[in-house]
Amino acid sequence: MNHSELFENIKRKKSYLCVGLDSEKDKIPPTLKKEKDPVFQFNKRIIEATHKYTIAYKPNVAFYECYGSKGWISLEMTVKYIKENYPDIFVIADAKRGDIGHSSKMYAKAFLENMPFDAITVAPYMGEDSVTPFLSYNEKWIILLALTSNKGADDFQYHDEDGIKLFERVLTVSQKWGSINNMMYVVGATRAEMLKDIRRIVPDHFLLVPGVGAQGGSLEEVSKYGMNSRCGLLVNSSRGIIFADSTVNFDKVAGEKAHEMQIEMEKYLSERNLI
Amino acid sequence: MNHSELFENIKRKKSYLCVGLDSEKDKIPPTLKKEKDPVFQFNKRIIEATHKYTIAYKPNVAFYECYGSKGWISLEMTVKYIKENYPDIFVIADAKRGDIGHSSKMYAKAFLENMPFDAITVAPYMGEDSVTPFLSYNEKWIILLALTSNKGADDFQYHDEDGIKLFERVLTVSQKWGSINNMMYVVGATRAEMLKDIRRIVPDHFLLVPGVGAQGGSLEEVSKYGMNSRCGLLVNSSRGIIFADSTVNFDKVAGEKAHEMQIEMEKYLSERNLI
Repeated sequence: MNHSELFENIKRKKSYLCVGLDSEKDKIPPTLKKEKDPVFQFNKRIIEATHKYTIAYKPNVAFYECYGSKGWISLEMTVKYIKENYPDIFVIADAKRGDIGHSSKMYAKAFLENMPFDAITVAPYMGEDSVTPFLSYNEKWIILLALTSNKGADDFQYHDEDGIKLFERVLTVSQKWGSINNMMYVVGATRAEMLKDIRRIVPDHFLLVPGVGAQGGSLEEVSKYGMNSRCGLLVNSSRGIIFADSTVNFDKVAGEKAHEMQIEMEKYLSERNLI
Repeated sequence: MNHSELFENIKRKKSYLCVGLDSEKDKIPPTLKKEKDPVFQFNKRIIEATHKYTIAYKPNVAFYECYGSKGWISLEMTVKYIKENYPDIFVIADAKRGDIGHSSKMYAKAFLENMPFDAITVAPYMGEDSVTPFLSYNEKWIILLALTSNKGADDFQYHDEDGIKLFERVLTVSQKWGSINNMMYVVGATRAEMLKDIRRIVPDHFLLVPGVGAQGGSLEEVSKYGMNSRCGLLVNSSRGIIFADSTVNFDKVAGEKAHEMQIEMEKYLSERNLI
């Protein structure tokens, strides 16, 4: 999927919602616990209930990896299920990988070749040769961490050399490594006011914005400061949708929550005359 | 395992060698390809041939993950095999993980609880709350990336705020998060001359030093600049040992290479009167 196709999908669905499949087994409704693979069954029902309002899914790999090889099977089945049934939906492995070149190549193989993910989140600390191996796949993307939504972002991301903060340097330097067709950036919604400055550095790139909802970020502010002329945003919500309800109706409620967000997003897209 | 026990093992074995189990399937000797799990069989024979000279093993998770759930089974079997047969050997998951708190907790669970790894490498970009969840396990360690051995280290790790480089800030700030009993740092051997300055910031911590051998780092220089009064070094070699030979004798040759490094290490430990 390239930049234009992603924007076309956004216009068609009137949504830039990414649903985070942080499907922690302990939080899955008890009714599913008897299934052979409760995590996959949970995801399948969440996907069926939300796909109409959703432009992207983002399983955070930590929630699968914590069950070792079994968790990896749930992850493999989930991404396969999405791409087989809804090939237009953009699927992100939220894996935050990054290693010396040859190891990064192996991580890229894991997520972008052996599994049909469209994108993977990557950590920038090790620099160019740790990132570029992920960029060698046609129509696949990396999403580089720039400014994250957690408190610890303050520890290093604001480290300031001659007025240039580390996350700004990441945005500036890394632009040379790829294009707007294969690179996005993670910018946390809890730092929405920063999106204005960030848009000066990366006016055209898509931004993946976590932290709306449970983490306190505002969809309105993110859209106000972050949206560009081709939307340029994927806004993620995880717990606020997938764990909104823990009864047998969990999927119905998840669908309603996703729909609510889609309606709000439609409003912001419309205000900008993008739809 | 704590700091003292690790030092005791180093003195007993007269070695601070860590063997990197970057067991890429394509490089495994053809004779093993017919086995059910060639990667695990390869590791087992490497371990049997090298354990006498080795203080630590470090599988790089990328080389397992690239085979998905099957690769994860090889990884699980490898770490289990080492800890069951050689419980004194320190086993590091070279995973370079790091995410917001709750996700990091899941990664910690994956490697330090569900698998019997002693340590995991962690990326610092997201700061304190992405790192501390790994520190909640008794006698388990994190190894934080500080100055890596690849070219891309230049892109961000030297970003300089008022004379303090980013990797120096990582070393300084993160010391408050743990102790010398549960934290180490990755410092690449290709930057051996930096070890002198790094030792001023972290005089007592263990350093995990990759990049000796195939990547061009010198064991002599690393030992000269990095060794402290309790050794304080784990020097990693991967390809230079495990892929030194690709015939049926691959394990014998790997053992010889590990022995050569152990002999050199014994010399440096002896010169410092540590043994």
